[in-house]
Amino acid sequence: MEYNISNRMSKMRGSAIREIFKYAQDPSIISLAGGNPAPELFPADQLAKIAYDTLKNQPVLALQYGITEGYMPLRDAVKDRLKRVENIGKQDDELIIVSGGQQGIELSTKVLINEGDTIIVEEPSFIGATNAFRSYGAKLVGVPVQDDGMDIDALESAIARHKNVKLIYTIPTFQNPMGVTMSEEKRKRLYEIALKNGILILEDNPYGELTFDGTKVPTIKSFDTHGIVLYSGSFSKILSPGLRLGFLCANSQLIQKIVVAKQVSDVHTAMLPQIMASEYLKQYDLDAAILKMRENYAHKCGTMLNAINEYFPKGVKYTRPGGGLFIWCDLGHGVNTLDLAKSAIEQKVVFVPGNTFMTDMDKPCSALRLNYSTVSDEKIIEGIRRLGTVFDKAING
Amino acid sequence: MEYNISNRMSKMRGSAIREIFKYAQDPSIISLAGGNPAPELFPADQLAKIAYDTLKNQPVLALQYGITEGYMPLRDAVKDRLKRVENIGKQDDELIIVSGGQQGIELSTKVLINEGDTIIVEEPSFIGATNAFRSYGAKLVGVPVQDDGMDIDALESAIARHKNVKLIYTIPTFQNPMGVTMSEEKRKRLYEIALKNGILILEDNPYGELTFDGTKVPTIKSFDTHGIVLYSGSFSKILSPGLRLGFLCANSQLIQKIVVAKQVSDVHTAMLPQIMASEYLKQYDLDAAILKMRENYAHKCGTMLNAINEYFPKGVKYTRPGGGLFIWCDLGHGVNTLDLAKSAIEQKVVFVPGNTFMTDMDKPCSALRLNYSTVSDEKIIEGIRRLGTVFDKAING
Repeated sequence: MEYNISNRMSKMRGSAIREIFKYAQDPSIISLAGGNPAPELFPADQLAKIAYDTLKNQPVLALQYGITEGYMPLRDAVKDRLKRVENIGKQDDELIIVSGGQQGIELSTKVLINEGDTIIVEEPSFIGATNAFRSYGAKLVGVPVQDDGMDIDALESAIARHKNVKLIYTIPTFQNPMGVTMSEEKRKRLYEIALKNGILILEDNPYGELTFDGTKVPTIKSFDTHGIVLYSGSFSKILSPGLRLGFLCANSQLIQKIVVAKQVSDVHTAMLPQIMASEYLKQYDLDAAILKMRENYAHKCGTMLNAINEYFPKGVKYTRPGGGLFIWCDLGHGVNTLDLAKSAIEQKVVFVPGNTFMTDMDKPCSALRLNYSTVSDEKIIEGIRRLGTVFDKAING
Repeated sequence: MEYNISNRMSKMRGSAIREIFKYAQDPSIISLAGGNPAPELFPADQLAKIAYDTLKNQPVLALQYGITEGYMPLRDAVKDRLKRVENIGKQDDELIIVSGGQQGIELSTKVLINEGDTIIVEEPSFIGATNAFRSYGAKLVGVPVQDDGMDIDALESAIARHKNVKLIYTIPTFQNPMGVTMSEEKRKRLYEIALKNGILILEDNPYGELTFDGTKVPTIKSFDTHGIVLYSGSFSKILSPGLRLGFLCANSQLIQKIVVAKQVSDVHTAMLPQIMASEYLKQYDLDAAILKMRENYAHKCGTMLNAINEYFPKGVKYTRPGGGLFIWCDLGHGVNTLDLAKSAIEQKVVFVPGNTFMTDMDKPCSALRLNYSTVSDEKIIEGIRRLGTVFDKAING
């Protein structure tokens, strides 16, 4: 049987990261490929108690249909927290609970983008977002990322060069995959440029709270006086990804349309996870839990940076993140990291080759993404040591 | 701020049912508008214990990211059950766990339908499906439904008259909103016609197990030797809708594309609900629980039919379902049930006007949908009595 797949989906491939994950299941392999939070930091005992109490005391609430906008106490708690932590929430803003940050991105695309419209993305960027954009036939235009975030001059010229630019997608804080953070000055320029050109901004901030030293740069949404920023947030990195909980905050007109799109997509986000997150926020101290994550990741990132400094060939460039989950390395020398990934698997280490995060995934790429959040110190050091050997051979022969 | 909404979403409205639900929140109102399962039948205590044990004993499984295809033990259990109960599952078939039956419909549309393609639907049909189709710019062509299901002669002539017919959407068993069931003969004709014309079938079967007397007509998927049927199932009516769990069974080539679409939509269905359903199927007797639902709904449906017979004006036509959640009434006489819904709310009863389920929702409609699953016997009788008064006035003045 030959099936006719829709134009928008016919060329779509699954994420290459998922293929690599098959190797990552092998316990003898050191995986620096993931983007998962550290599982030892999940508040499992607290959530077990909350789940039990919820199903015992509010069974109908937990098991019956809910409303598309989300469980009201969770929405209120997230609004309060966004106001307090990120200074987000103007009078015209509204918030919807979504089934993970990914869904906020997908629904925004469905509601805003026609086939052929242009979306400007950081290059490299999160493949979950770029694939969501591709799945609606958007044209992706990449703008390079510097140590202080998106190259705003390049952004201006991209806007001048391309038609129908509808959206700028950015992960300004502890960017995936680079780990870099956009400066406040650049955020303000980005906002002004988008406003002037009538372009919306999708600000994706799943890692923002995972700052190593407490430093925070204001979110773009915090100075959005004109309602042009859609802000996507997630519980995946601060509570649990398996619960599939995220939220989207934007002007209420946009959220109304997102609600209609979500209604036909999954009706509403599963109730029990929503109630669990709501009760966790009420009964426990999420800020204290996040402080532990920050310390844990700061330590692991430091371990990896030290190992890179010791074992990687001289001349390899790498980022020094102030938070989040990722380090980005560029080997230069015309090396293709997709080929190196295969050599690395022979040495029982996996990473994600950089082409995965590019607008043109078929173009050879000399960079790669490393993750430190789910691996022990020993494995981080051993993994980087093995990669050093592979990279040295590739560069120096 | 004026936002540019995508063409596919700009004309989309939220479900009218949801507007009516606002009234249904008022405890003084008798709601015959819902489509919710009876909450007293949720196995809340069992699920509370399972959720607690899961989070205590397998916290990483429950809280970390999972794979897009779904939690393997649940997939296997659903495959086994489908084979046993519905005779579904050929060699080339595969199954994906989705976040409720709605998501299976939405992802199928995204993967198969281009803007302007035609989808044939029963008229009336489930608004969640028709709105999902609309949200991808599909052209909907309605085919009337008779007491033994879709009018197959009308289907043939619709296929002859319309271009680019890509999909036939049907709820053959205990149809929403009509409560009728397609005969086996019609199912076979439908299958042959689709096969001959190279059209896929989306068979939606959320109510199939809720047969009052145990009678079952074979699913269309059970005689799908050519891989043209996508079968959508759900845990919403047999376990809990709030968990948001469904499944889609189709040829593995199609499921592969659905997996890619789901990956950009919500990455995967929440893990804890998946594990809860899997453990429930393992530890408890779902068949016994379903038997209780069947008895409960058979009783309530009988109560409603008796009340209709007693209180509705003579000449009102209504269906006599063999299972499921809904009765469909047609008042005739050029009555517009959208207007009557307002009079009914004054009498503190709500129902869903029939236009909601039509391809052209703006056309006046003399029919309406009634639900009996969440209401007590007393309220069913009192609700029907009040509606009888409203309808009598509308018809007889």
